[in-house]
Amino acid sequence: MPDNRRFLLQRRPDGEPVREDFELVSEPTPDLAQGQFLIRNHYASLDPAMRGWMDAGGNYMPPIPLGDPVRATTIGVVEESRAEGFEAGMWVMGLNALEDYSVGVAGGFTQPIDPSMVPEVTNYLSLFGAVGMTAYFGFLEVCAPKEGETVLVTGAAGAVGSVVGQLARIKGCRAVGIAGGPEKCARLTEKYGFDTAIDYKGKDEAALTKAIAEACPDGVDVIFENVGGIILDAGLMNLNLHARVGLCGLISEYNTEPRGIRNLWQLIVKRAQIRGLLVADYVERFGEGAAQMGEWAAAGKITIDEHVDEGLENAFDSFMRLFAGSNQGKMILKIA
Amino acid sequence: MPDNRRFLLQRRPDGEPVREDFELVSEPTPDLAQGQFLIRNHYASLDPAMRGWMDAGGNYMPPIPLGDPVRATTIGVVEESRAEGFEAGMWVMGLNALEDYSVGVAGGFTQPIDPSMVPEVTNYLSLFGAVGMTAYFGFLEVCAPKEGETVLVTGAAGAVGSVVGQLARIKGCRAVGIAGGPEKCARLTEKYGFDTAIDYKGKDEAALTKAIAEACPDGVDVIFENVGGIILDAGLMNLNLHARVGLCGLISEYNTEPRGIRNLWQLIVKRAQIRGLLVADYVERFGEGAAQMGEWAAAGKITIDEHVDEGLENAFDSFMRLFAGSNQGKMILKIA
Repeated sequence: MPDNRRFLLQRRPDGEPVREDFELVSEPTPDLAQGQFLIRNHYASLDPAMRGWMDAGGNYMPPIPLGDPVRATTIGVVEESRAEGFEAGMWVMGLNALEDYSVGVAGGFTQPIDPSMVPEVTNYLSLFGAVGMTAYFGFLEVCAPKEGETVLVTGAAGAVGSVVGQLARIKGCRAVGIAGGPEKCARLTEKYGFDTAIDYKGKDEAALTKAIAEACPDGVDVIFENVGGIILDAGLMNLNLHARVGLCGLISEYNTEPRGIRNLWQLIVKRAQIRGLLVADYVERFGEGAAQMGEWAAAGKITIDEHVDEGLENAFDSFMRLFAGSNQGKMILKIA
Repeated sequence: MPDNRRFLLQRRPDGEPVREDFELVSEPTPDLAQGQFLIRNHYASLDPAMRGWMDAGGNYMPPIPLGDPVRATTIGVVEESRAEGFEAGMWVMGLNALEDYSVGVAGGFTQPIDPSMVPEVTNYLSLFGAVGMTAYFGFLEVCAPKEGETVLVTGAAGAVGSVVGQLARIKGCRAVGIAGGPEKCARLTEKYGFDTAIDYKGKDEAALTKAIAEACPDGVDVIFENVGGIILDAGLMNLNLHARVGLCGLISEYNTEPRGIRNLWQLIVKRAQIRGLLVADYVERFGEGAAQMGEWAAAGKITIDEHVDEGLENAFDSFMRLFAGSNQGKMILKIA
């Protein structure tokens, strides 16, 4: 059997991850026990949530044990199987790791997928995967947008945010996106159909608050929040009565001591709410979400960008793009 | 007519209010226009929300104009009337000001009250007023407690908090209160029926987090939040899945630059929510709330403490008790 390159977590990052926290090693491909199958990973999803799994505390998942490969959702092909229902050659998707080969278990988190159902097999990691389903259920269920409302999306050029903006337009809302830099802002309006875009770069909290007020003359009814920090604080200053903030992520705070949210009193003034959302709660409804998203995609109402980097040896640089904001679309690492 | 002593806002406080921000002046009692009536104020409610009204930005009410008396809910007796439905000698309650005499307008915010309906007329400012109704609707509607759940109340020895704890017990919940100092903590368990009390004094965030975990072995399902700062952050670290935080106040932040809430990511991990609440939203249901509270009070299930200071000349010191935490119960100023 070929060697198995594995991208290991060797040290828990202190703030921003550095190259030395990880190590790419080569190990023999493991033997299979009864009920197991070997997956040749082809693509891995790189997600901000993985940063939390690297900490000792973990979050909604146990922490990645030191010396283990970095946990990630992957898609690949069954190479060899001692498990019923998983034959060699079958495409599968599951929570595996950044490595050439992962071992799956029947009845575990890895499920067969059908590449003929989607334009590209990688779409299972974007529009029809956690990203698309986070946007779909997080926005439609948690934020409950109504026609004519104003929706503010932060991290709007990101994988989830760009889909939320498009969903907002489909639902008849005014969609305002916040992103970093003129290139991304242009993408928001030209490619994802946002009504207008705000460039957060070079703006302090007061300037952001003013920019949001100008972009949202009727106030903000819904915030889909991916960022936190002064961007969330500026959004809170523009809430309408009974506004809803769907809290999807706080990427600005993952690698640093959080600055803290200081305008929470606006929730009282506006009788508004912040509600945390996690796509895992909707797994049983993924079929419903994927069907609807597929319909909108086929009708040209939703586009999704995928940013595919190549090679396990580039795992660190690709992962760090998420925090530098240098990816254009859903961050995917091509392993083979 | 007698002179009208008025406690004026002369300067907007910069952080913690100081004596020089206010002035007690004496002015002639105003003449009445048609449709107006003169109220001899007897008692005024002193509330943390008044601090926000002193700022230029205002919050859910317009700011108090400089040179105007400090806005407050008062109860008093109609002294003279040119308004239909408001005869001299009638008890009334309304949003007036810290002054001997206020002018009411028929159809305005001042309504007749019936002192024979309550044990003490001041109860209109506590159990049957904004305080009691905030606890009633804020806790029962916004926090939606279920039997057997654990309810954490911050500012638990305060006017609202002490009522929320008692409502939690009535609803079959475990009630845990946080307050400052052993005397207040004893009051929580001995007088208000909390299952246990946590003294926040001398505890940093880590110690508070641990103390809450120990007092809430099954986690926290509901937080009724009056304080903010590290107390809220420590509470967030102990949330159960789908927990609800009713945000009633952030008194630790009213006079200082807010420290910021840093554990908001727990809302994602626990799919929990924070929702701001304001009693004004329930004015039309006050009758329902007051009837139920009256029933519980008559059955001995709810007690409320009132801390009555005497004299308009003591308005500043009495108001500042709210922030020093040196009041024992609903803070009321006796004017006459």
